[in-house]
Amino acid sequence: MDIYQRSLALHAELRGKWEMRSRIPVDSREALSLAYTPGVAQACKEIAKDPSAAYAYTRKWNTVAVVSDGSAVLGLGNIGGLAGLPVMEGKSILFREFAGIDSVPIVLSGQDEDDIVRTVQMIAPSFGGINLEDICAPKCFAVERRLKETLDIPVFHDDQHGTAIVVSAALFNALKLADKPIESARIVICGAGSAGIAICKLLLEGGARDIVMADRNGLVCEGEPWLTDAQSEIARRTNRGMLRGTLADAVRGADVFIGVSAPRQLTKEMVAGMAEKSVVFAMANPEPEIYPQDALDAGAFVVGTGRSDFPNQINNVLAFPGVFRGALDVRAKEISEGMKVAAARALAALVGEDLSRECIIPSAFDKRVAPAVAQAVAEQARREGLARA
Amino acid sequence: MDIYQRSLALHAELRGKWEMRSRIPVDSREALSLAYTPGVAQACKEIAKDPSAAYAYTRKWNTVAVVSDGSAVLGLGNIGGLAGLPVMEGKSILFREFAGIDSVPIVLSGQDEDDIVRTVQMIAPSFGGINLEDICAPKCFAVERRLKETLDIPVFHDDQHGTAIVVSAALFNALKLADKPIESARIVICGAGSAGIAICKLLLEGGARDIVMADRNGLVCEGEPWLTDAQSEIARRTNRGMLRGTLADAVRGADVFIGVSAPRQLTKEMVAGMAEKSVVFAMANPEPEIYPQDALDAGAFVVGTGRSDFPNQINNVLAFPGVFRGALDVRAKEISEGMKVAAARALAALVGEDLSRECIIPSAFDKRVAPAVAQAVAEQARREGLARA
Repeated sequence: MDIYQRSLALHAELRGKWEMRSRIPVDSREALSLAYTPGVAQACKEIAKDPSAAYAYTRKWNTVAVVSDGSAVLGLGNIGGLAGLPVMEGKSILFREFAGIDSVPIVLSGQDEDDIVRTVQMIAPSFGGINLEDICAPKCFAVERRLKETLDIPVFHDDQHGTAIVVSAALFNALKLADKPIESARIVICGAGSAGIAICKLLLEGGARDIVMADRNGLVCEGEPWLTDAQSEIARRTNRGMLRGTLADAVRGADVFIGVSAPRQLTKEMVAGMAEKSVVFAMANPEPEIYPQDALDAGAFVVGTGRSDFPNQINNVLAFPGVFRGALDVRAKEISEGMKVAAARALAALVGEDLSRECIIPSAFDKRVAPAVAQAVAEQARREGLARA
Repeated sequence: MDIYQRSLALHAELRGKWEMRSRIPVDSREALSLAYTPGVAQACKEIAKDPSAAYAYTRKWNTVAVVSDGSAVLGLGNIGGLAGLPVMEGKSILFREFAGIDSVPIVLSGQDEDDIVRTVQMIAPSFGGINLEDICAPKCFAVERRLKETLDIPVFHDDQHGTAIVVSAALFNALKLADKPIESARIVICGAGSAGIAICKLLLEGGARDIVMADRNGLVCEGEPWLTDAQSEIARRTNRGMLRGTLADAVRGADVFIGVSAPRQLTKEMVAGMAEKSVVFAMANPEPEIYPQDALDAGAFVVGTGRSDFPNQINNVLAFPGVFRGALDVRAKEISEGMKVAAARALAALVGEDLSRECIIPSAFDKRVAPAVAQAVAEQARREGLARA
């Protein structure tokens, strides 16, 4: 059986990857009257007096909803919320297994932007944070922005920011090996959807100054008629040389290629035309923009992908558990750009003396990862005055 | 420390009465690729092809949301969703402890009827059933009706139907002891809110023919100008003698008094004026409509309350875990009136030879309760063609 058939068999055997447990036995009248009525009324009264008491007397402090409308699931596209539930259950157990977070998968029956926003606002009191997942662009930008503006708990679209954090960490280390400062590196991002735009923003926050983004329509450049709102915003901050043309034009002489697009976008010829000690992250899944051996043969210095069967796997699981752990630990109001950069730097630093062309990022199963990311995120939240505990 | 202070200390110690667990360790690349990407895509594809596959490959089959806007919490009134969270967590762990159900507390930030309906519709795909809790009347009627009309999973407002089931079970046994058929029993229900109306409907379904409901405005009677919509509907089916007046007028000569109202509504004099072998259920909490000893002194034959410190505790925990267990087990589309009556009869039957004036209902900790209720509910769902598995 291949991985897909074995996974399906596992899902059929488990009938759900998570379960809910009581943290207290309810096996006597005494227990019932303490955990439930009448005793529970006291905790309710305390929270009615002071809403922040919910963090002391309920599970809110440690609970994250994984919310999806299933409009952009993995490589499957718009399959709807229900069909996306196995992914959201998977995400939820990763929160538990990697960071001790109580996470609940919430898949939605509707895909309208207003409905999603209103629903998350309505259910938010139960949760300490909201992880948005697999919501398509450009809707995901508006949903996240509106929720961040109205909720007092962290809202984090992992497809954007989780990816951006891990790519940034990997790039910090790759450029260190190449001995190139990020400030002068010429960076091309192929794929100007939600992940690409979030990577671009975070790299700018992390010091990058020369980024060109490419989309299927061409290079993202101020004034292009086909730009979405999010791309227009990016166009004002990138491609200041006003380069127009094809991906090949942008890649020529570039130091870094970051692909979050589609298979086979990058040819060996294009890699050969990049600068010395070039960095290639080809993260299209399952088939990358270029296979690692091809990129290396063409002269790339460091290569990463999204796959576990090649070195340098750029995997979101390195980021989101620790990011939320840190945010929850200090009851952060939000997850700021600064907190994301701090997460990326902590992740990069963990590689330490192991740093090499085939090891620019820690393993997903390195037990130090989530605690280190959490600590960096929590400390940055404190520095920025976003911590409430 | 009293029960309230001890309960608060317990809540502070636990910081949440539930937790989420993974049903599979994710400690290797192999495990990650089976539980999450890329393997998980196969389960998604199966559900996209056939939505009912969600019951085979995810936790939907065993998951119930406990949803509340906190508009009518216990005796605390409208304290809002967040302050109601300790109650909803308590309810969720009772689902787990009594019936092995994975339950998630979902408290809402808004209290608008349309918002509640839309929110529950939106999050429904994650769940196998919806338990509505502590939502005020008359909003609760409309919310439940609209959700039942639009969702294909059971929706059950426990404050109404859980109470109605346990009261019905207790009454079946009390009337058996008194040797009175329910068909000819004169029944008075004091309190024409959500619980009272649900009790009335279920007793009618269970064979009762002579019910008079009393509210703070007087007796519920067709044509009264103060009736709510729900009360008007009830008025067409009860009080066919068109009795007007006070609670005392209704209680005179009655066989059964059922109180879901307020403290001290029933006097010893009123009980003394009831029929021979009268039944008094005084369920106002924490202070009943009449204390049991007073009712017995005045001549009542069987007395029940909502309290654990008196005999015959009429406690919702006897119903909702088994009702949902049965509904989930056969993947029932809804929980019908017939299924509720079946639950009540199963609950009553469990008392068996122990039946006495001080034992008309099983103990909440009788391990036979939830399985017996579940079996009766599942069988009735099959009989009514409401089962899908």
